[in-house]
Amino acid sequence: MNTRETLIYNLQSIVGNKYVVYEPEDLIVFEYDGSVDKAIPLAVVLPNSTEEVSRIVQLCKRQRLPIIPRGAGTGLSGGSIAEQGGVVIALTRMTKILEIDTQNQLAIVEPGLVNIDLSNAVSKHGLYYAPDPSSQKTCTIGGNVAENSGGPHCLAYGVTTNHILGMEVVYSDGSIQWVGSPSRESPGYDLRGILIGSEGTLAIVTKIIVRLLKKPESTKTLLAVFKEVDHASAAVSGIISEGIVPAALEMMDQLCVQAAEQAVHAGYPPDAGAVLLVELDGLKETVTEEAEEVEDICRKYEPIEIRVATDELEREKLWTARKGVIGALGRFAPNYLLADGTVPRTKLVEALTKVREISKRHGLLIANVLHAGDGNLHPCVLFDERKPGDVEKALTVGGEILKTCVGLGGVLSGEHGIGLEKQEYMPLMFSAEDMEAMGKLKPAFSSEGIFNPGKIFPTGAPCADMKSSSAIARTGVNTYI
Amino acid sequence: MNTRETLIYNLQSIVGNKYVVYEPEDLIVFEYDGSVDKAIPLAVVLPNSTEEVSRIVQLCKRQRLPIIPRGAGTGLSGGSIAEQGGVVIALTRMTKILEIDTQNQLAIVEPGLVNIDLSNAVSKHGLYYAPDPSSQKTCTIGGNVAENSGGPHCLAYGVTTNHILGMEVVYSDGSIQWVGSPSRESPGYDLRGILIGSEGTLAIVTKIIVRLLKKPESTKTLLAVFKEVDHASAAVSGIISEGIVPAALEMMDQLCVQAAEQAVHAGYPPDAGAVLLVELDGLKETVTEEAEEVEDICRKYEPIEIRVATDELEREKLWTARKGVIGALGRFAPNYLLADGTVPRTKLVEALTKVREISKRHGLLIANVLHAGDGNLHPCVLFDERKPGDVEKALTVGGEILKTCVGLGGVLSGEHGIGLEKQEYMPLMFSAEDMEAMGKLKPAFSSEGIFNPGKIFPTGAPCADMKSSSAIARTGVNTYI
Repeated sequence: MNTRETLIYNLQSIVGNKYVVYEPEDLIVFEYDGSVDKAIPLAVVLPNSTEEVSRIVQLCKRQRLPIIPRGAGTGLSGGSIAEQGGVVIALTRMTKILEIDTQNQLAIVEPGLVNIDLSNAVSKHGLYYAPDPSSQKTCTIGGNVAENSGGPHCLAYGVTTNHILGMEVVYSDGSIQWVGSPSRESPGYDLRGILIGSEGTLAIVTKIIVRLLKKPESTKTLLAVFKEVDHASAAVSGIISEGIVPAALEMMDQLCVQAAEQAVHAGYPPDAGAVLLVELDGLKETVTEEAEEVEDICRKYEPIEIRVATDELEREKLWTARKGVIGALGRFAPNYLLADGTVPRTKLVEALTKVREISKRHGLLIANVLHAGDGNLHPCVLFDERKPGDVEKALTVGGEILKTCVGLGGVLSGEHGIGLEKQEYMPLMFSAEDMEAMGKLKPAFSSEGIFNPGKIFPTGAPCADMKSSSAIARTGVNTYI
Repeated sequence: MNTRETLIYNLQSIVGNKYVVYEPEDLIVFEYDGSVDKAIPLAVVLPNSTEEVSRIVQLCKRQRLPIIPRGAGTGLSGGSIAEQGGVVIALTRMTKILEIDTQNQLAIVEPGLVNIDLSNAVSKHGLYYAPDPSSQKTCTIGGNVAENSGGPHCLAYGVTTNHILGMEVVYSDGSIQWVGSPSRESPGYDLRGILIGSEGTLAIVTKIIVRLLKKPESTKTLLAVFKEVDHASAAVSGIISEGIVPAALEMMDQLCVQAAEQAVHAGYPPDAGAVLLVELDGLKETVTEEAEEVEDICRKYEPIEIRVATDELEREKLWTARKGVIGALGRFAPNYLLADGTVPRTKLVEALTKVREISKRHGLLIANVLHAGDGNLHPCVLFDERKPGDVEKALTVGGEILKTCVGLGGVLSGEHGIGLEKQEYMPLMFSAEDMEAMGKLKPAFSSEGIFNPGKIFPTGAPCADMKSSSAIARTGVNTYI
């Protein structure tokens, strides 16, 4: 047997023949995620237990093969792409809910559990899991941990890291460890916090203790329709500066509204310049009072219409349109590049004005959907890869948008991570010293850089660990065997 | 000049003669903090800028002297004790509020700023800083960051780490760096998170970006008086399991009530077996409704009395009594050891029963004050150091309480840190591998272990970094010159 065959045989002996994917035609499925990058791994292995994950890691480590952890593959920054070859560990078989503790409002789950399945499972106890990425019907809790994912309802309730109490992880030497604890506090260094959002570069998460929230007594969803994006932005500032923190405060511009409406028929007026989707939750009286305040604020900015969802069905439709808008944009162009930057909330109008200028200058349509309350922009650059030069133009536009965000005091990524796609922009925000300080953490977890190598940090960065890890990528790690 | 004189001369040349403390009679003030440990540093230096901190660190590093950062010295686990000698950097001159951004609801402050001074300064904008340790009239924001401090109102709003967006820090090589950002999200590894709660062992914080919250429209403070501790505990479980998250949910047992009442005369009934102090805040209607629900729940457990503070003065008094209770316990014994452990909220009754057993077995009074909503116990072990054997007994009792907490699924420290005082108990909660994983982070920040050496980790722990750092403590670091 050659070394590749040996590897596959050894992987099969850990997880069973059925759960190792290695035929080229099967591997294609694992070639991409939600981003623009593509690469074919050497093999994909689907373990069913922490012990299997540990044994796979030890095997790959002995052979110095890159290990790429993968959830549902919905990531938007290329984090699960096997750019340097190696073995993809797909955690989609580990979907169990191991424990639900209703009294202490927590659950212990496996990483492959689909986000919405958790909320569905605890719903009968009056509980839910707050972070709700738009991909929540597909994406996994483990993937959410890797990316520290946000979602529309993270405005009031915080992103993934605020909802994870502890985790069982497998380190690069195959050792298994718990970090954090079911308690809200844990002494010592916050290893839990550093691992969340580390995009699979430091450890593989195999069990997760999540906080569950009590479902609100009452929820009210408002749709406010404006003539101009700037009016909608001003209303956002108005709501926030009144001290109201809605559960969600989302914005879509005209292109998004048109696409969403054509797809879902939720009753979004197609001539709207922009819409706000505002959700309030809590006790009935609070929600009623806050909804009135939100309406009053919106009325100051010449709304075309303000509408409150009258029942759960209408609410669902409004959200289905919002959460499916990116897919719906396929109506306007065959390809898109979804940017993810943040600005201080007070800079929303300025940021969107600059995005419009960029769009005009390069002649590419940009549709804007925003977690507006968070100042998290998602300009969606529409292009056609069949047109010569369009891909390059889209990438340039994406870069200019990120530069704009950072220039306005924002950051490079609100919730999609850095992955492969934004590495080159890290220096916009971080000095060489900044990246060196982060890079120094790698050896503490993964001295040989076999976990998701080449992600987050620009490989050419002038930083000791970066240099050594890219050196490994060229010379030390077996990218193909 | 001998080396000690040279050191003092060099320190004076950085900060000015006035701001170096080195005479034995002056150093005594810096010998202790809020814990039971004591040690005299070689010198105390009071810088007034980041640059001065950096220069002091570089100077100490050249001479391999331990550096002990210090805020107000109110810490309860010995974190700012110069146990291995060296130079204390007291940050109490750096008290400026550098920026208040009301629109984005944040402020940039220096680490020596006293906690309550921040809330007072932003009060005119309708804002406040949520974490409120009982020592908030004295303790500093920098010290709060080092210990990841909690406080009564952290139940609803989260502990310090949830309120710190970014920080300027000085690393052990004297380099100055920003971690985190004014945005709610920041890509890359969460260095901010790992530094918060690291008890001065990884970096010195020199500027802090804090989140500010809008003051609630309405606040209601209830005092519920019970015959028995168990009734009060059951009411706590009842409130939490109803899905109500009060802003604060505090409990005091009979000894605490008597001490607090004698000190403050807030009207706590001295025959109470236990009292709950419940604070609700938010919109008026919500608060009214929740207060009714809390009353209904409390009524199930045969309360002696339920009272609502009728005005701000009465509310203030109730809180002054609660926040001053530890000091007030001086009426009953000249010394105390304040334990700080947590248990799952469902285990409160069991934990307090075991604390009573421990008290009885050792013949030492224990007064209990609890952040009950968080499951955070503060049994206060009363003793008299003049009685032979009492100190040892108190320490044994403290240890048994912590073992009880961990045995019930809780943790070693809710908010006071590990410091010197609880190092030996770390193995109760963390395996050698767990501590090794944490210890491996140290070289990433502080390769020579000069920052607060000998804190957090048991110095005899079987872990590579621990071993080397204690070896440095014995041989490499100049503990006296």
